[in-house]
Amino acid sequence: MNDWGNALTGMRTTAPLVHNITNYVSMNIMANVLIAAGASPAMVHAEEEAAEFAGIASALVVNIGTLSTPWIASMKAAASVAADRPIPWVLDPVAVGATGLRRDAGEALIGLKPAIVKGNASEIMALAGAAAGGKGVDSAHAVEAAEASARALAETTGGVVAVTGAVDYVTDGTTAYRIENGHPAMAQITALGCSLGGVIGAFAAANPALEGTVAALAYFGLAGERAAQVSTAPGSFAVAFLDALAGIDAAALTDGAKVSPA
Amino acid sequence: MNDWGNALTGMRTTAPLVHNITNYVSMNIMANVLIAAGASPAMVHAEEEAAEFAGIASALVVNIGTLSTPWIASMKAAASVAADRPIPWVLDPVAVGATGLRRDAGEALIGLKPAIVKGNASEIMALAGAAAGGKGVDSAHAVEAAEASARALAETTGGVVAVTGAVDYVTDGTTAYRIENGHPAMAQITALGCSLGGVIGAFAAANPALEGTVAALAYFGLAGERAAQVSTAPGSFAVAFLDALAGIDAAALTDGAKVSPA
Amino acid sequence: MNDWGNALTGMRTTAPLVHNITNYVSMNIMANVLIAAGASPAMVHAEEEAAEFAGIASALVVNIGTLSTPWIASMKAAASVAADRPIPWVLDPVAVGATGLRRDAGEALIGLKPAIVKGNASEIMALAGAAAGGKGVDSAHAVEAAEASARALAETTGGVVAVTGAVDYVTDGTTAYRIENGHPAMAQITALGCSLGGVIGAFAAANPALEGTVAALAYFGLAGERAAQVSTAPGSFAVAFLDALAGIDAAALTDGAKVSPA
Repeated sequence: MNDWGNALTGMRTTAPLVHNITNYVSMNIMANVLIAAGASPAMVHAEEEAAEFAGIASALVVNIGTLSTPWIASMKAAASVAADRPIPWVLDPVAVGATGLRRDAGEALIGLKPAIVKGNASEIMALAGAAAGGKGVDSAHAVEAAEASARALAETTGGVVAVTGAVDYVTDGTTAYRIENGHPAMAQITALGCSLGGVIGAFAAANPALEGTVAALAYFGLAGERAAQVSTAPGSFAVAFLDALAGIDAAALTDGAKVSPA
Repeated sequence: MNDWGNALTGMRTTAPLVHNITNYVSMNIMANVLIAAGASPAMVHAEEEAAEFAGIASALVVNIGTLSTPWIASMKAAASVAADRPIPWVLDPVAVGATGLRRDAGEALIGLKPAIVKGNASEIMALAGAAAGGKGVDSAHAVEAAEASARALAETTGGVVAVTGAVDYVTDGTTAYRIENGHPAMAQITALGCSLGGVIGAFAAANPALEGTVAALAYFGLAGERAAQVSTAPGSFAVAFLDALAGIDAAALTDGAKVSPA
Repeated sequence: MNDWGNALTGMRTTAPLVHNITNYVSMNIMANVLIAAGASPAMVHAEEEAAEFAGIASALVVNIGTLSTPWIASMKAAASVAADRPIPWVLDPVAVGATGLRRDAGEALIGLKPAIVKGNASEIMALAGAAAGGKGVDSAHAVEAAEASARALAETTGGVVAVTGAVDYVTDGTTAYRIENGHPAMAQITALGCSLGGVIGAFAAANPALEGTVAALAYFGLAGERAAQVSTAPGSFAVAFLDALAGIDAAALTDGAKVSPA
């Protein structure tokens, strides 16, 4: 598959309802990113309705950024519904190695077999049991160091694992891709990685999990490249990034995607 | 009343303290919108203090976007205080038809007789018992389809009901207005509708509920029109929208309001 | 100390991990502000992990903006860890005089001896027992009226107290400074004061508490001055403010700081 723009068209055509159980820091920017991309976001985390809402969504995204015990229950309940229907569900294990609460939650959620796990190198390695570490929410490891962990984790879940960094790595345990799109200024904007989790969910709602994830990463990184042409100062970059997400069409994505087999 | 700018002047002169119990996605943008408009926002939702805080506010806005059982208790307690004092309180029944938790909360809150109910067509119809539906937080119905429901709901509450959409409809059950201000780009920004609920509360603190609501809708829509002249790309539009809210004065609102009797 | 830029360099060199237990309204902008300044923010508030996370952070910031009983427990637990290690911890007593919940929480947190208390005049006066008041989150008193309260509070905590306003006042009970940097447009952006609390934490992680606080206030105010040269309309100002935080270097801060002994 070289026509990554097709995956964008598929997503926008269906404008999937993406159910996000995500951290407080990310909720607003993640919703704006999803709308700009062409999806329909909803942030629903209460235990009283999370499972019910997962029953009407087209994809589910679970992000453990601001975790608490009641939310873990919601995450498990919604993920179970997603796995049963099935609709694709994405796990974003933010800072999973930082505290015991996160390690336990991460382990339990992996057991519910997410269609896609998206994390930085330290997070993927921690989930695979290969290493601890990470500085708060930032990675202490390079993407390359996490590739074996990603393949092992993909075998455990039977799904796709994406390691994000300067060059992203995506694998389903057998096939793998590297995505070179992106710009360092993206790391200056909080919760942009969380927002990417939402975009992966939107793409996976309308495409096969592996190809949808690759296309989402290329699309997101391409938006970063375009925004950086406007400004790399953080306030202006964030504005330009949302503009770029909306402005990229299928042809531009196909043309600008820097994807190669790994 | 054709001098809608007077309502803006009245609001800005008092800079009302608007107490918001609102969803997490909206808290930041709603506060920024209220400040830009000229009001003084406070986000206070804990059961331990919501009722006490409603006792010092000039208006209360209850938005069920990210609902949970403890918050429903806070909402009811604060709304009861607001109804007793009385200060105007606004109900924004986000996605009220989507889950059982929301339907039950919506019904209970309607019983506390909000001075103003503001929702999209699907939400107003669901509250009035006329229909279910809506795609997550988005409406599945046109404004026109909800006008009878709005009038019925206004009779139930004894207050004002506003149905938002391409052309807004506002009624107190007897008198009704249509407001044609606005721009499609507003739908690209998450929680802008929630923020409008706050602005309605601010206007209602200083004006009669019906006229205050109409003026708030015209003002908000006019800001959207002005922002769209700067950019319709979502990041740039959101920035320009806040700028426009602050930049519109009474004369501009009177001149730009597109209000007609319905 | 006149070379305030040194304090900025010290902070950026270590890129301190700043642990924030902060209100929902502020989480996103506070994280973006901290990244733009050069620090590494993490928002972690759950009782299950707040104390553990405080054990790996370089500074802790406790903001009571959206308070609830479980969060008070997290705040106390994290502050105790911070005081024991010790790492500097900052208390931002938002609207502490507004409700009983806030007064009780403020009193308890002061007992845990924050290295720095940062508030507006009404908040500092309420904490020192000198006065009640404030309009929601806004101050009802001038900075000058709170200077004696600030000194008294500094003696109680054994730490630094900063009163923010048109001209800021910072004291450790013995030495005091006034900082004249800043711009009125900063008051148009919600949670900018909260974000300042984070920046103070970042500076205090790498500098003595008194000088670090003064440098943080000068830096933050200087960014406001620079942003206002771009635009004073609230949407554009907020964007320019983030840009300015990232753009100010040590030489610019030393040159632009308006600090004088008090």
